[in-house]
Amino acid sequence: MEKITSNQNRRVKAWTKLKTKHGRDNANQYLLEGWHLVSEAIKAEQPIVTIITTQARLNADGAAFADQYECVVVTDEVAKHIADTKTPQGIFAVVTISASDQVAANYARGGWLLLDQIQDPGNIGTMVRTADAMGLQGVVFGAGTASQYAPKVSRAMQGSQFHVQIAEADLVEWVNEYHEQGLPVYGTELNPNAVALNTVNAQPNFALIMGNEGNGMQSALLAMTDDNIFIPMKGNAESLNVAVAAGIVMFHLQK
Amino acid sequence: MEKITSNQNRRVKAWTKLKTKHGRDNANQYLLEGWHLVSEAIKAEQPIVTIITTQARLNADGAAFADQYECVVVTDEVAKHIADTKTPQGIFAVVTISASDQVAANYARGGWLLLDQIQDPGNIGTMVRTADAMGLQGVVFGAGTASQYAPKVSRAMQGSQFHVQIAEADLVEWVNEYHEQGLPVYGTELNPNAVALNTVNAQPNFALIMGNEGNGMQSALLAMTDDNIFIPMKGNAESLNVAVAAGIVMFHLQK
Repeated sequence: MEKITSNQNRRVKAWTKLKTKHGRDNANQYLLEGWHLVSEAIKAEQPIVTIITTQARLNADGAAFADQYECVVVTDEVAKHIADTKTPQGIFAVVTISASDQVAANYARGGWLLLDQIQDPGNIGTMVRTADAMGLQGVVFGAGTASQYAPKVSRAMQGSQFHVQIAEADLVEWVNEYHEQGLPVYGTELNPNAVALNTVNAQPNFALIMGNEGNGMQSALLAMTDDNIFIPMKGNAESLNVAVAAGIVMFHLQK
Repeated sequence: MEKITSNQNRRVKAWTKLKTKHGRDNANQYLLEGWHLVSEAIKAEQPIVTIITTQARLNADGAAFADQYECVVVTDEVAKHIADTKTPQGIFAVVTISASDQVAANYARGGWLLLDQIQDPGNIGTMVRTADAMGLQGVVFGAGTASQYAPKVSRAMQGSQFHVQIAEADLVEWVNEYHEQGLPVYGTELNPNAVALNTVNAQPNFALIMGNEGNGMQSALLAMTDDNIFIPMKGNAESLNVAVAAGIVMFHLQK
């Protein structure tokens, strides 16, 4: 088993580059950090290339991965250098970005959440987790939405990225596909024509678009929705966080 | 108008101490940061002692505060030193922690959200915002929940702390008070006796307890709930974020 003790090592340099978009695009790989995510990726049979582990972590959990994958043992210092978190858990997986991540298998069938320019990794992660909890098919990351492979986004999804499908795609194409199949596309812009959530029926096939935290949905998409849904509330509607709004609507649609 | 140009200034040192619990307890004051929060505090007639502003911010927004409050003009460097954010907006308010923050006026009447050992400032802020959106009376911060005056919590509430009442109190006392009045107390622990959300009626008076992100509610409180509510879902229930779960339940109860 290879052992690496220096941050100057060629492979360590390559791994740290995976924390940037440029580095991920060049290598066609991304980095998962932490035991929960790595073990979820193993369970989900993700295309893991290498597992990077400290000796302590190898002793504790190695039985779950040491025979299956190429493993490299690193010092705590190297682990800290590779990590995106302040208190790394001493385990990482280098994973191939496969073409199937780009186009989803169940294209425009079932319930899908479409993310239009969502910026905050925490909001993205929470929405993917909720889509998982609600039994949706998957989540489409539109242009301007943070990458699913960015370290903060990847951690915030807490493994739900391996339970639902994730696509990075043009939302206009997705909406067109839903329309061609006669399936509804919902937005969540508060406008005079918006319909109350309780007047919309629960249903197995739908696309739900959530827009940017500050600016809402882009106008091209807004013009394509069948209905905009509003959540009838007694208080100050401006205060609803995008992930909470998405959760309430997804819960209603999947009932 | 006083002008301060040095981080070594006595008042600057006192203000930076308000970022810690110890400093807030000693001074009986806390610090608000950013124009949105400061302007919300002005609108809500909070007990503002001093407004700290850069010259640029004073020129832009001074009309809204310069005549009403003691103002101190600081340099960008001093503003950065006082700030808790990386890109400060050059405005802060020093606010008195008043006794009315500790005990809420509408004690155990209306809808209240009770936070039991909630750690994450983002989750706390999102839940207070949702309580505001749903028209609840207020939110009780129980022991072990991050302080409402901690800079990150205060920012995450985005002004909703001035629209609903916030109390820091013993949750057991609150639950007892609800029970004495014959009003229901709901928990959200998933256990064999839990009842489905759709079987619970919407109602004007209730207490809803949300427990710690990892460990759930403390057992003493759990034993005191009238019902534990679960959210019936088609997917993987473990994946629901605490603020999303709270949002779905609050939305249902306020219908």
